[in-house]
Amino acid sequence: MSSFQLVGRKHRPEDTVIAMDGCRIGGQQLTVIAGPCAVEGEEQMLALARELKGMGVHILRGGAYKPRTSPYSFQGLGEEGLRILAAAREYTGLPVITEVTDARYMEKVCHYADIIQIGSRNMQNFTLLREAGRCGRPVLLKRGFAATIEEWLLAAEYILNEGNEQVILCERGIRTFETFTRNTLDINAVAAVKELSHLPVIVDPSHGTGRRSLVGPVSRAAVAAGADGLMLEVHQDPDRALSDGKQSLTPAQFAVLMDELRSLAGALGRRL
Amino acid sequence: MSSFQLVGRKHRPEDTVIAMDGCRIGGQQLTVIAGPCAVEGEEQMLALARELKGMGVHILRGGAYKPRTSPYSFQGLGEEGLRILAAAREYTGLPVITEVTDARYMEKVCHYADIIQIGSRNMQNFTLLREAGRCGRPVLLKRGFAATIEEWLLAAEYILNEGNEQVILCERGIRTFETFTRNTLDINAVAAVKELSHLPVIVDPSHGTGRRSLVGPVSRAAVAAGADGLMLEVHQDPDRALSDGKQSLTPAQFAVLMDELRSLAGALGRRL
Amino acid sequence: MSSFQLVGRKHRPEDTVIAMDGCRIGGQQLTVIAGPCAVEGEEQMLALARELKGMGVHILRGGAYKPRTSPYSFQGLGEEGLRILAAAREYTGLPVITEVTDARYMEKVCHYADIIQIGSRNMQNFTLLREAGRCGRPVLLKRGFAATIEEWLLAAEYILNEGNEQVILCERGIRTFETFTRNTLDINAVAAVKELSHLPVIVDPSHGTGRRSLVGPVSRAAVAAGADGLMLEVHQDPDRALSDGKQSLTPAQFAVLMDELRSLAGALGRRL
Amino acid sequence: MSSFQLVGRKHRPEDTVIAMDGCRIGGQQLTVIAGPCAVEGEEQMLALARELKGMGVHILRGGAYKPRTSPYSFQGLGEEGLRILAAAREYTGLPVITEVTDARYMEKVCHYADIIQIGSRNMQNFTLLREAGRCGRPVLLKRGFAATIEEWLLAAEYILNEGNEQVILCERGIRTFETFTRNTLDINAVAAVKELSHLPVIVDPSHGTGRRSLVGPVSRAAVAAGADGLMLEVHQDPDRALSDGKQSLTPAQFAVLMDELRSLAGALGRRL
Repeated sequence: MSSFQLVGRKHRPEDTVIAMDGCRIGGQQLTVIAGPCAVEGEEQMLALARELKGMGVHILRGGAYKPRTSPYSFQGLGEEGLRILAAAREYTGLPVITEVTDARYMEKVCHYADIIQIGSRNMQNFTLLREAGRCGRPVLLKRGFAATIEEWLLAAEYILNEGNEQVILCERGIRTFETFTRNTLDINAVAAVKELSHLPVIVDPSHGTGRRSLVGPVSRAAVAAGADGLMLEVHQDPDRALSDGKQSLTPAQFAVLMDELRSLAGALGRRL
Repeated sequence: MSSFQLVGRKHRPEDTVIAMDGCRIGGQQLTVIAGPCAVEGEEQMLALARELKGMGVHILRGGAYKPRTSPYSFQGLGEEGLRILAAAREYTGLPVITEVTDARYMEKVCHYADIIQIGSRNMQNFTLLREAGRCGRPVLLKRGFAATIEEWLLAAEYILNEGNEQVILCERGIRTFETFTRNTLDINAVAAVKELSHLPVIVDPSHGTGRRSLVGPVSRAAVAAGADGLMLEVHQDPDRALSDGKQSLTPAQFAVLMDELRSLAGALGRRL
Repeated sequence: MSSFQLVGRKHRPEDTVIAMDGCRIGGQQLTVIAGPCAVEGEEQMLALARELKGMGVHILRGGAYKPRTSPYSFQGLGEEGLRILAAAREYTGLPVITEVTDARYMEKVCHYADIIQIGSRNMQNFTLLREAGRCGRPVLLKRGFAATIEEWLLAAEYILNEGNEQVILCERGIRTFETFTRNTLDINAVAAVKELSHLPVIVDPSHGTGRRSLVGPVSRAAVAAGADGLMLEVHQDPDRALSDGKQSLTPAQFAVLMDELRSLAGALGRRL
Repeated sequence: MSSFQLVGRKHRPEDTVIAMDGCRIGGQQLTVIAGPCAVEGEEQMLALARELKGMGVHILRGGAYKPRTSPYSFQGLGEEGLRILAAAREYTGLPVITEVTDARYMEKVCHYADIIQIGSRNMQNFTLLREAGRCGRPVLLKRGFAATIEEWLLAAEYILNEGNEQVILCERGIRTFETFTRNTLDINAVAAVKELSHLPVIVDPSHGTGRRSLVGPVSRAAVAAGADGLMLEVHQDPDRALSDGKQSLTPAQFAVLMDELRSLAGALGRRL
């Protein structure tokens, strides 16, 4: 697998660490990104953001532009969602991450967000990747749900090739024949990408499993496999969430998981 | 599978037929779209276009904006490629189809092309789908290489929902564990979509197999399963093609296939 | 793919034709195997057998030992089922095929049946393959539902390597992410195996689709792709079948399909 | 998923613990099974067995009957391999596990081995499952490489339904589109099966990854996800192994992993 260059360990042997205002992604640190699947309203977002900060979360997440399989599903609040995210940052001091789904929205999203997310369905949207390479912000690149490890690294290569070296890879499960879980989280890929690339790798067990009860064990597994962090969906009332409720943790469940992860981090020589 | 509406047989029981200048897609007619994977130069394109017209091809294809896995691969000629395609239309009188990879290129592509293609990697690029729904041209929507039949129909629903009913579905193979072929052409899906939807369905055996020697048998199979047409890659010198040479037919091989398809069409009560 | 030898075209360039009492498998002839998924009773089997013979079927099928996912499902009639199959042969003069699921049953099954079937789940039951190679009967080898084309040919190699060259390959669909159909019939594999191997290849659209309404179109596709025959489930009352009712044709539907296949065979230069 | 009964948590809420001479599988204990893929000779096996015992391994593994994709690959030493395994048990006092590939070998394998392994390719060899249910020994049931979680649990149900409740489930990776790794280890399934069933679950990262360098991280992940143990391939000279050398650890690499696992076990409240 020698088709990529800039993202490879040969190009840069040491781990890339992305330093942001108040947090670092990569290196010895474990980074936890948490928040609702979609931003649903300001009050909800601010209350949750404060709670998550209190539990030690480093970065807030929340979708404003939601890619949805059906045109009849909730599509996100758009710019209003971005505004609310920025308010949550003001309120908590935590950086925020949100997805950009079209090159035309890049400037607007960069205006509000600290980290740009490229979603699974857009991993091979090459014009969007090129824009992300010129946007001046760290980019979290989710693996396409049917992308090989090589294709994923080559998608990152598009971003680095435009001059942006601040790329965070995110494994979020692949599509297989198994139907009990929403996706099959590829734990092999986490270890493989740490070996092949110098970029930080985080894991999204919420999409990777699609089932609340599996998020805890799979989060622990991701950290034990060497992931540099986790991205988790948390919602105050998952049964009423406008999207992905079945895979969202309640704040109480999330607090338990954070404690488990801290104990695990210690045994693995990492910090949380 | 009741999640889609406008694309379903319940909404419109009879087959949708798309009438274009000089050809029809859907109904009793079999439609053959052919040309090189990528437009590589004007001379090449015009010579091939004339040859293909002589063999009975209805629509010319050729990529100007090429989505490529690696940033270091040939990315297509861009607007120059569009211009050459338009010249081929002038020269032959045949309509042309080409892929649009970004909503920002939609207007330009519509200026040159008769049919807009949305590629497999963009099947769930929902902002692009919405633009396609407002572009005023027929749209050929390729199935995502890991999209279920339902997701594919819902992607078409995005286009119809914006008011554009001229959608052609194109099965081009899905990603499976099999590595002998580039993709696994899903012949079940061809029959399934003809049952579920009123939209015309065509098949791309070039990408669906990735192997020149399998293109003929799989083309015949597609027609026998009820497809309304085929999209085929043809190149004068496949071994020197800038992309997808291994799956391109030579003009001579293509001529043999056209003869076989004509004989088959007769036995199936269709016209070619 | 040079890992196999005896099954390859290099070893024997011309098509293998298996001659049986009253029928041939391979060559110009198309062979149709039909019958119920499981033998359910003598009266049912004899009545259906006579009807199928009248429609031009060449070989009767029916399961006596049924591999079932759950231990609580109907497991087949066992030796009583074999006896009924033999009675159907007496009654119609047609050869019969049935599945053997364990090397210990090989002798008994060979006593009653003309062709031995090795099912998808046993494609890599290597001791069973070796016994099949010594059983003295033609063997129909179904592709494992997650076997690559190479693994399938190597499984056949096990049989030929024991001295039995009368092997019929049967494509029956592979497991993919698609859930609308029970399996994804791999039409590429039909064409590929005809190219790679001299062995006859037939297709099972009943398991390959899992849906009655798709069996017709996919049967036509299989023949157009070059298959040497079909294996189809037919049941007088599919809704009450003890297994696989959803994918079984009624005799009336089967009769329509036979007519379509005859017309198609002519256009392809084959005989039915 | 209510199709299984005896293997479910509803039938027995508390974890099943399998007690053997000198070790327990399930409960608080983590169990490590290690050894070569195939038994290759007595001297090799005894030397390795002694070394593994010294590192804290609980159970020795080694294949005598090897299911191989090609008839031309090394097929194992057969009964001589069983005899050598028994000698390794005498020499070390550790129980031994080996695979049975045919119901006719069950009695012989039970004569030599303490635990019977049913391999991935035989997970739906239902006559073999029934024999395993009557064999009087604990049975390690590997998940089929294309089996759903439900099918895997139903295969175990076949064994319990014959009266044998001593079943150990073993996740060993599933087949997906990814080719960088030999299989995709399904970490979701480990957590899911611990939730659905009372049976102990162990993980085989050697087959699950197919790459030596990934075995360590994925072993740690398996334990963090809640697995009750690991099954690992170790070989003194992996490059000369008669099978699966690329995924075998050297004894030195294995020793490092054991230390990591001990530290991890402590943080997770388990014993190793």
